Amino acid sequence: MIPFESILTRIRGTEPLVHFITNYVTVNDCANITLAMGGAPIMADDIREVEEIVDLCSALVINLGTLNARTVESMLLAGKRANMRNIPVIFDPTGVGASALRNESAARLLRELRFAVIKGNSSEIHFLADGMASSRGVNARTEDIITESTLEHSILLTQELSRATGAVIVMTGPIDVISGQQSCIVRNGHPLMARITGSGCMSAALIGTCAGANPERLMEATVTAVCAMGVCGELAYERLHLLDAGLGTYHSLIIDCIGKLNSVTLEHYQQVEYRV
Amino acid sequence: MIPFESILTRIRGTEPLVHFITNYVTVNDCANITLAMGGAPIMADDIREVEEIVDLCSALVINLGTLNARTVESMLLAGKRANMRNIPVIFDPTGVGASALRNESAARLLRELRFAVIKGNSSEIHFLADGMASSRGVNARTEDIITESTLEHSILLTQELSRATGAVIVMTGPIDVISGQQSCIVRNGHPLMARITGSGCMSAALIGTCAGANPERLMEATVTAVCAMGVCGELAYERLHLLDAGLGTYHSLIIDCIGKLNSVTLEHYQQVEYRV
Amino acid sequence: MIPFESILTRIRGTEPLVHFITNYVTVNDCANITLAMGGAPIMADDIREVEEIVDLCSALVINLGTLNARTVESMLLAGKRANMRNIPVIFDPTGVGASALRNESAARLLRELRFAVIKGNSSEIHFLADGMASSRGVNARTEDIITESTLEHSILLTQELSRATGAVIVMTGPIDVISGQQSCIVRNGHPLMARITGSGCMSAALIGTCAGANPERLMEATVTAVCAMGVCGELAYERLHLLDAGLGTYHSLIIDCIGKLNSVTLEHYQQVEYRV
Repeated sequence: MIPFESILTRIRGTEPLVHFITNYVTVNDCANITLAMGGAPIMADDIREVEEIVDLCSALVINLGTLNARTVESMLLAGKRANMRNIPVIFDPTGVGASALRNESAARLLRELRFAVIKGNSSEIHFLADGMASSRGVNARTEDIITESTLEHSILLTQELSRATGAVIVMTGPIDVISGQQSCIVRNGHPLMARITGSGCMSAALIGTCAGANPERLMEATVTAVCAMGVCGELAYERLHLLDAGLGTYHSLIIDCIGKLNSVTLEHYQQVEYRV
Repeated sequence: MIPFESILTRIRGTEPLVHFITNYVTVNDCANITLAMGGAPIMADDIREVEEIVDLCSALVINLGTLNARTVESMLLAGKRANMRNIPVIFDPTGVGASALRNESAARLLRELRFAVIKGNSSEIHFLADGMASSRGVNARTEDIITESTLEHSILLTQELSRATGAVIVMTGPIDVISGQQSCIVRNGHPLMARITGSGCMSAALIGTCAGANPERLMEATVTAVCAMGVCGELAYERLHLLDAGLGTYHSLIIDCIGKLNSVTLEHYQQVEYRV
Repeated sequence: MIPFESILTRIRGTEPLVHFITNYVTVNDCANITLAMGGAPIMADDIREVEEIVDLCSALVINLGTLNARTVESMLLAGKRANMRNIPVIFDPTGVGASALRNESAARLLRELRFAVIKGNSSEIHFLADGMASSRGVNARTEDIITESTLEHSILLTQELSRATGAVIVMTGPIDVISGQQSCIVRNGHPLMARITGSGCMSAALIGTCAGANPERLMEATVTAVCAMGVCGELAYERLHLLDAGLGTYHSLIIDCIGKLNSVTLEHYQQVEYRV
């Protein structure tokens, strides 16, 4: 059982400050979902200040979405500082596999930093795991998407990557797979989440918030975040349907739901299953 | 007649990946509207990766909105690669006329690249056409706005610019004028679209999506995109009115409508007229 | 009495163009709220064009949110040009106190530029006022928040900073304190505004719009902007409650309300009190 109540209570009690070095596409959604979850975001990417910003924070989220030469150096410096201070660093290798710059940046970050959590879609996690998959932009390739038939393989893959990196690994998709000391699958979420930008980035923001407030139980914090995102994706879809709204409104509705989420709702809707 | 159904079907069948080098103001709306239309966006602006990203994509959209020294070089390199690969490059010269940097960057891009489509408001297209109009920021000057009385002149202007550049030219406004081998006017849209940020950028995103999936019929693809934006501006205004919503919600409602758009609706609401 | 009607009428009559050098987190909201208020935004940060952009504009808004080495130089150059042209410069020292880079950049901007209005939360204004407060990220520290018991002290502090800088000072919080030649407190707003990103940035955008159209009455323009933001925060909360919406929708609802705001509504809801 995931201690949802205790994890959410800790967030709301400590209001963890989360430092983001992230892309300019979904940054507003990341900030708002962090606030809605009970954390506080700070976006800062200049190399001259990232260490000081890390010093104020409870977690660091690094996202490769719109990386550039300048920001990759900031990610490295911020990550080292966070490692030194033992605050969780969450890595979202957006689009890894799509370019040598992304691949080399990801490899360098993996070599020089110790990540608490690495979250990606199936193509990104495959790429990190075996360095062989090719990525199709920032979306997962169809053949990589987690289905019942590829689930066992995905669990093994995340377990191996977790052993190799020491991080909790999250592979998102129709079914989310999470592996740390144990493995866990989450069957929450809605297909429409793949048709808006930022679902993955918002998941990483929630992981940063949950892990920042609960650094001694990273696996549980990560499962809570992933499950919360999935459950709110479902609840937001119900709202969307009811309101006859659509893809432009969906991201806001998800954040609405995160702001109202409590552990009772999460317990009720959760479809989390441990695997040994 | 514009083959709306065939153009939309091709998008939904191929899910064209569209590469954006665009401004940080409206980038989230561009990503979401591309997804809502059936494409997939990728935003990448580092010079070390833009060629590889272009290689994955079906179209490239270049927008000058918040250009800087670094990104202009990336636009050039990405554009050359796209030209080499024969994928359509869409140019949105946001704010051209407002500064020497914008004017020189636009001139250099026009000199060194071959554009499939150039889309701007009336001031921007006037500026490109005669290098003489002065721009008032990112909005069209009142005296440039297309009305019934200036329509014939606008058609001629876009035809000349089309001949000079080889591109399909789109001049947006209360009436949209589109000129390639032929000319076409689109009377869809709503005045409120001028009172939100991103209407123009979202149009360019739709053009990128339509052209990416239909590169052999750029004129039809462009008219479909412009008409879809206008029709959804109208439908979203009806929703806005019904919901008693306002200018903060309008961009999301437009994207909602794009996500639900089909060729039957487009046929029903389209006000497209060919001119010879 | 604040001449709300006259100030709003002037905005809607002149459509002031407002130049922003601001962060990439809330920039879309800043653009949309400026348009909703009756202004027109232009975002431009390359050092080669900022002077020309200032030349087109009626106000300049500088925000330190995601500052970097490149943009700070642009802020200085743009600010000098705006000072030379006597157009109001609004300073939003987001996160000052959180890093040496922010502190030094703020100090340099304060030394080299003449600001018309400086707006910050209580921690930021405390930091500027006494250089001694420490900041906790981009949110105000609990002990700095303006309450009835600290109100008189806050008024004195803003008055001193106003004398020292020549600027109208705005300290935002549960109660907003504004000091120029006189002091004024605004009791509008809603606690939920602190739980979304961009409330402060949007306030600064409104100040830029009001001041740009009313440069000869900066105090009244600033009070109008701050009061408008607070009133719309209240009205948007009523809508949110009615619609059973939440934190993801709130920023859009505030912009909806700004777009519909008129002086009658503002007069009705305003809770502005002059202090001598």
